[in-house]
Amino acid sequence: MNVPDQPLYRQLAGHYRRSIESGVLRPGDRMPSMRAFMRQHDVSLATATESYRVLERESLIEARPREGYFVRAANANTLPAAREPDWHDATHREPLVAQFVGMHAAISALVARFQQVPDALNLGGVTAADALFPGEELQKIAVRILRRRPDLLTSPGHERGDPQLRAVIARRALAAGFAVHADEIVMTNGGTEAVNLALRAVTQPGDTVAVESPCFYGLLQVLESLGLRALEIPASPTTGLSVEALEFALQQHPELKAVVVVPHLQNPLGCVMPDAHKQRIVELCTQAGVAVIEDDPYRELVEGETAPRALKAWDSAGTVIHCTSFNKTLAPGMRVGWMAGGRWHARIAMLKFSQSRLNEPLSQAVLAEFLQSQAHERHLRRLRERLRAQRERMAQGIGAAFPEGTRFTPPAGGLAFWIELPRHVSSMALFDAALAERIRIMPGTVFSNSGRFEHCIRVSCPGPLPHSADDALLRIGAIAHRLARENALPGAGAKA
Amino acid sequence: MNVPDQPLYRQLAGHYRRSIESGVLRPGDRMPSMRAFMRQHDVSLATATESYRVLERESLIEARPREGYFVRAANANTLPAAREPDWHDATHREPLVAQFVGMHAAISALVARFQQVPDALNLGGVTAADALFPGEELQKIAVRILRRRPDLLTSPGHERGDPQLRAVIARRALAAGFAVHADEIVMTNGGTEAVNLALRAVTQPGDTVAVESPCFYGLLQVLESLGLRALEIPASPTTGLSVEALEFALQQHPELKAVVVVPHLQNPLGCVMPDAHKQRIVELCTQAGVAVIEDDPYRELVEGETAPRALKAWDSAGTVIHCTSFNKTLAPGMRVGWMAGGRWHARIAMLKFSQSRLNEPLSQAVLAEFLQSQAHERHLRRLRERLRAQRERMAQGIGAAFPEGTRFTPPAGGLAFWIELPRHVSSMALFDAALAERIRIMPGTVFSNSGRFEHCIRVSCPGPLPHSADDALLRIGAIAHRLARENALPGAGAKA
Repeated sequence: MNVPDQPLYRQLAGHYRRSIESGVLRPGDRMPSMRAFMRQHDVSLATATESYRVLERESLIEARPREGYFVRAANANTLPAAREPDWHDATHREPLVAQFVGMHAAISALVARFQQVPDALNLGGVTAADALFPGEELQKIAVRILRRRPDLLTSPGHERGDPQLRAVIARRALAAGFAVHADEIVMTNGGTEAVNLALRAVTQPGDTVAVESPCFYGLLQVLESLGLRALEIPASPTTGLSVEALEFALQQHPELKAVVVVPHLQNPLGCVMPDAHKQRIVELCTQAGVAVIEDDPYRELVEGETAPRALKAWDSAGTVIHCTSFNKTLAPGMRVGWMAGGRWHARIAMLKFSQSRLNEPLSQAVLAEFLQSQAHERHLRRLRERLRAQRERMAQGIGAAFPEGTRFTPPAGGLAFWIELPRHVSSMALFDAALAERIRIMPGTVFSNSGRFEHCIRVSCPGPLPHSADDALLRIGAIAHRLARENALPGAGAKA
Repeated sequence: MNVPDQPLYRQLAGHYRRSIESGVLRPGDRMPSMRAFMRQHDVSLATATESYRVLERESLIEARPREGYFVRAANANTLPAAREPDWHDATHREPLVAQFVGMHAAISALVARFQQVPDALNLGGVTAADALFPGEELQKIAVRILRRRPDLLTSPGHERGDPQLRAVIARRALAAGFAVHADEIVMTNGGTEAVNLALRAVTQPGDTVAVESPCFYGLLQVLESLGLRALEIPASPTTGLSVEALEFALQQHPELKAVVVVPHLQNPLGCVMPDAHKQRIVELCTQAGVAVIEDDPYRELVEGETAPRALKAWDSAGTVIHCTSFNKTLAPGMRVGWMAGGRWHARIAMLKFSQSRLNEPLSQAVLAEFLQSQAHERHLRRLRERLRAQRERMAQGIGAAFPEGTRFTPPAGGLAFWIELPRHVSSMALFDAALAERIRIMPGTVFSNSGRFEHCIRVSCPGPLPHSADDALLRIGAIAHRLARENALPGAGAKA
């Protein structure tokens, strides 16, 4: 098979990367404006934007509000970027179809281990700490609404969810690049219920669904619970799901019913999918008659002045089921999610009503009010800033603490880092040793059924970390050093 | 097949019924105390209690707190009690197994009709009006908790639900006759999610589940959405699911995976299952290895000084999955349900986590506090009293308004009446005509797939009714009169 040339935006990013690495461009130098970049390279705005996104993701440049892009100060991270999956390699060419029996047991075993050490420092999650969310502002709104409407607790509320909230959501969807009518929005109990309903709407037990590899273990649990089989499609640590591999899989597996994709801050990779890939995925799946389930809880955490567009923005045929929630960006304690079901809307509405009826009216009323206020955008900006600061500290810590052979690409937002350790280091051994030191991390084993990520871990910076967090990273790094030494085979870093 | 003799409590109830009807006992007369009754007839407390329950249900006697039981004043209800199902009849002997494809469409069509007349007087529901719930007390608790803990809105809360609430629930379960540890309680988004999870835990699509006939249409929707088949088991308007018919069905249908039963205020019949039947159903299903899914949202609305015991009280083998919620008894706007999964607990916990993760912490904290206060029992007592007053007014209204040939048994609590019209009257025609007069009722058609209840309707008294409600009943009655006349065949009331 012919490997296509690198897309233009990658070529241009590579051009600037080399200039920065060779010192032609130096820390603090101003990058060309978008307009200048477009003229200079004769490319579209989309290509210019993508090029800069790649460089931002690699921490080579940074955006300063109302000033433009600048070359960043070199940081302590001397570790190389994560490897691109080589999906032409034989094991990738034969994508793995597996029924995830046992995945839940594996995760439950991990959770049981966590629970034995309840006071451990949690570097394993993807939900930011309470302190980063506008608890007091939400509380004030909630108290005001309760005073005005005590009946909210005692009346079931609107059949299809708070009409005002659905109207606000519909307006906000425009910013994500798509138009949806308030009546086509189904409110759900968090994003997890949305993804469940989407899968139930388009599959029967025994069906096969394509997922990213690595992918969020929670999705693998859902697939197991619904009796579905998963086809793992390689994902790039910089651009997410491989479009090329998906195209191949659609040809080889006509039985595929859906593709589940996390386009923004893919969990665990932390990458953002380029718009051109989004468009192509929607096209391919529309042609193949395969549903795209877009699981999109992190979009508003992506770095940059404007949030990227959803896959749904390229969907004219109703192929995309867009699922999201406010749990990761605004209020983890309010289980409010929603979905736009495309051509499966009626079936999804039926399944939702059968599965759990209505959602709580109070949370919906509080969100409707908060989302319409200036406070929401202000909160998101501040949240992104604080997460960025935490990520920088984290990236430096990882760069300083981990052994040679470790690779990682700083995520494009959010709080989770996907770290590839030297191939012979077991992430389960690292997990065990870290937990013994009262630190929680997530081992790579649970992000796939393929065994490809046994040497990877997901580590996150959930909140305003105590100084002990720097220390915790150093301790994890020290364990990784020890494991790398102990298990190293004479003569090579090859897998034992 | 040999029809067994009437159970003792029924025989004794019949004895007193005849004495009341013949005037031997007169309105206002005191009935024997329980102790005297037991001595006099040489029976157990359970039998004495059941006998009085039957008479209470038939509105022949009433309990006065701390005084005992009295013969009631004759009311205007001159209509006979509902018919017992004759399950020895051929159509009942061959219970109907059906996959409810189309049931959701039928119900959606009804709902769409409702929505066209949004200001109709709703006599079709089973949720009491806001005014009957302690909105202000709950609101005060909610405000206090929010003030103390604004983080409730921004932190995900305990993995398995609020530990304090689960502890309170476990203590309260003792009153329902069973012991369950707080850790064996799974919190759910309302009772509907609980029943869904129970069904998912014990079945695969294509499996068959026994249900009561008639049964709540919402359950038929759930079965359809899960791809399950339903076996309809006749239910008595006074004692619920026929134990005899269930026994027969278990023999004839070894493929049965579960029985779903609503033991208290069965929807739509409004009856309460005698304890002896509960015990027998648990025994039969335990022997057959069939799960009992006890859907029990109305138990605390049953008339009487002490609430009856759940089926789960007779379950020593983990056969019963007990599902309930606070939506019908306390707070329809707080979607808090819970379940005790018996031997399927681990699978249910897994399915719940995969399906919708956590529940909202705020509602759970509010409920934990309210349930521990005196206010809760006070609320339940007052709610039962007010519903009783509404039911009496309703029963009189029905008795006065409906045509000859109408039958109904006043429900043992709650707010819904199941009314059998003359056989040739179409409940859909009545539904249509009532909606044209801006009154919502539920036609019997949606409570079964068998076509046996085409001449029945469910009518309820949701709240402190405006005077227009009496008028509404008169108008429904007038329509029923008209339909009875128009469709009557010469010479008989037989079905056209």
